Amino acid sequence: MNGTHRFLSACRREPVDRTPIWLMRQAGRYMPEYRALREKHTILELIKTPELAAEVTMQPLQAFDLDAAIIFADILTLPEAMGLSLEFVRGEGPVFHQPIRHADDIQRLQDIDPESALSFTMDAIRLVNRELDGRLPLIGFSGAPFTLACYTIEGGSSRHFIHAKTFMYRATADWHRLMERLTDAVIAYLLGQARAGAAALQLFDSWAGVLSPADYATYVMPHTQRIFTELAEATDVPLIFFGTETATLLPLLAKTAADVIGVDWRIPLDEAWSIIGEDKAIQGNLDPVILFSTPDQVALAAQRILAAAGGRPGHIFNLGHGILPQTPMEHVTALVESVHAYSPMST
Amino acid sequence: MNGTHRFLSACRREPVDRTPIWLMRQAGRYMPEYRALREKHTILELIKTPELAAEVTMQPLQAFDLDAAIIFADILTLPEAMGLSLEFVRGEGPVFHQPIRHADDIQRLQDIDPESALSFTMDAIRLVNRELDGRLPLIGFSGAPFTLACYTIEGGSSRHFIHAKTFMYRATADWHRLMERLTDAVIAYLLGQARAGAAALQLFDSWAGVLSPADYATYVMPHTQRIFTELAEATDVPLIFFGTETATLLPLLAKTAADVIGVDWRIPLDEAWSIIGEDKAIQGNLDPVILFSTPDQVALAAQRILAAAGGRPGHIFNLGHGILPQTPMEHVTALVESVHAYSPMST
Repeated sequence: MNGTHRFLSACRREPVDRTPIWLMRQAGRYMPEYRALREKHTILELIKTPELAAEVTMQPLQAFDLDAAIIFADILTLPEAMGLSLEFVRGEGPVFHQPIRHADDIQRLQDIDPESALSFTMDAIRLVNRELDGRLPLIGFSGAPFTLACYTIEGGSSRHFIHAKTFMYRATADWHRLMERLTDAVIAYLLGQARAGAAALQLFDSWAGVLSPADYATYVMPHTQRIFTELAEATDVPLIFFGTETATLLPLLAKTAADVIGVDWRIPLDEAWSIIGEDKAIQGNLDPVILFSTPDQVALAAQRILAAAGGRPGHIFNLGHGILPQTPMEHVTALVESVHAYSPMST
Repeated sequence: MNGTHRFLSACRREPVDRTPIWLMRQAGRYMPEYRALREKHTILELIKTPELAAEVTMQPLQAFDLDAAIIFADILTLPEAMGLSLEFVRGEGPVFHQPIRHADDIQRLQDIDPESALSFTMDAIRLVNRELDGRLPLIGFSGAPFTLACYTIEGGSSRHFIHAKTFMYRATADWHRLMERLTDAVIAYLLGQARAGAAALQLFDSWAGVLSPADYATYVMPHTQRIFTELAEATDVPLIFFGTETATLLPLLAKTAADVIGVDWRIPLDEAWSIIGEDKAIQGNLDPVILFSTPDQVALAAQRILAAAGGRPGHIFNLGHGILPQTPMEHVTALVESVHAYSPMST
């Protein structure tokens, strides 16, 4: 089995020769090759120059025996394409200088055609696929409307999400209008990526876990459901949901048409899977900070997760969140080798 | 029933005339009275001057009809008393300039006698109790060893806890030695507060939720258990555990000798209670950001939580985390009045 066959089979809960593994944010600052490029280019230059985005996408595949590529991009280029000016500020992260605060701000948002507004990512997908030549699948992705709404209302990262939640509670009709606009854009963006050659699509609702289950159900779930329902009607590629701190949201997420649910390390994988149900595949769930321990501890932690999956078809090994910038390269190697060595034949 | 009777009865799961309510960080920056004092004094001056700490403790009780006071203090004065120099840096929060990174740093920690090293808090407790005169109970508190270890190893707040977790994974024997020293100090500190007159004791393991359940069980749980076991043997006052993002840790926490488990808004209160078991009381669990919505929405959210508690004895109403600095005062009034109006007679 090559990576494409292995990864796509696992997404469909079909038997594989070994558990496929890829790592969220696998192209990034922990790699010297990436840091070398970043000395010459800003993040947005890397993302918006298809040749550079393709090069960065390929870097972790040359360093580690991974089973999938993920296109190098950022979830915030989508709201940028909708008309919000985006800047990556050193030490602060991404900043929208004119955050969304009023109904007018929502009306000013533009609908997007990914082939024009986000052509750099579409072109990068085509370039990477040419290089991968079917050996490995290329995952496309988008931020989820809730996480994008948080960023665009807060104007950047946040600790308590006071602006976003206040908007949600006090201007609920506008909130849903914003979520609808973002949902439309997310669907168009992800379908564009599938058309350009993405073999699977992952929706990152990284901040879903800041909401109570009741609030997620009221303010977010209808939009999450629409995304997966419309994508499932329009494309055959596997659909992955990912969020952090979602232990108590899993019963809701299980009701979407997503094929795979990604979980973080806060819930044991077997417990999560029994909530999600065996009609979905599961992705996860190593604490990224375990990669700062020792190769032996990394191996042991990987074994524990594989044991929790219990050899059932439909487990994709991953971290519970993105790999951290200071992660030692050799511990990533230890992780990938451990998953190879200890993953059961799923039959 | 006065507040003391109501609060202590609820902690013991005995019938009450209405659900008691207090708010984590109820003395703080959202109150103009507090901000006025802060213009003249640093946080550490307020904490370390018993008359000022007592005054701040009383402020929310004069503004709202709450059922408990909590002594104005900070969890980090304990490690400071153990020898770590603490500074509150504007815009950055608390900073330990010499964080714990090696076995030597642990050996240098001093054992504490709260009546000398933390006499300001002991004296503040006595002053507040004189004023409360039995009408309201005064809650004493301490940070939990894990949260304190994180602060002292990171040197301050953190996003990914890389230093703390790496220490935990790589220097496990030293980690447990540090946790033991902190556990000894926490027990001494809390018992000192009970002796000074605290009517209940709350342990804040605010950051417990960054660990997987397996890691919490291995690296933290023995120390959490020892605290509650030793406190339960030494004192009759009710013991409260509080942490955030603990949905998947509740089966572990249920095994401690704590009388009350505090939960955040990420888990429905009834679901949490059924995991914790009916032999413990429960405290929570309104999202503090709901206080930024409208009085009507605050009332509705309070009703939902009271409905989840279902009139069973043993519910103490609280937020799921500390009240935020920009919270509108009148919404706090709306919350307290709603809990009074809608709380069932527990019989």
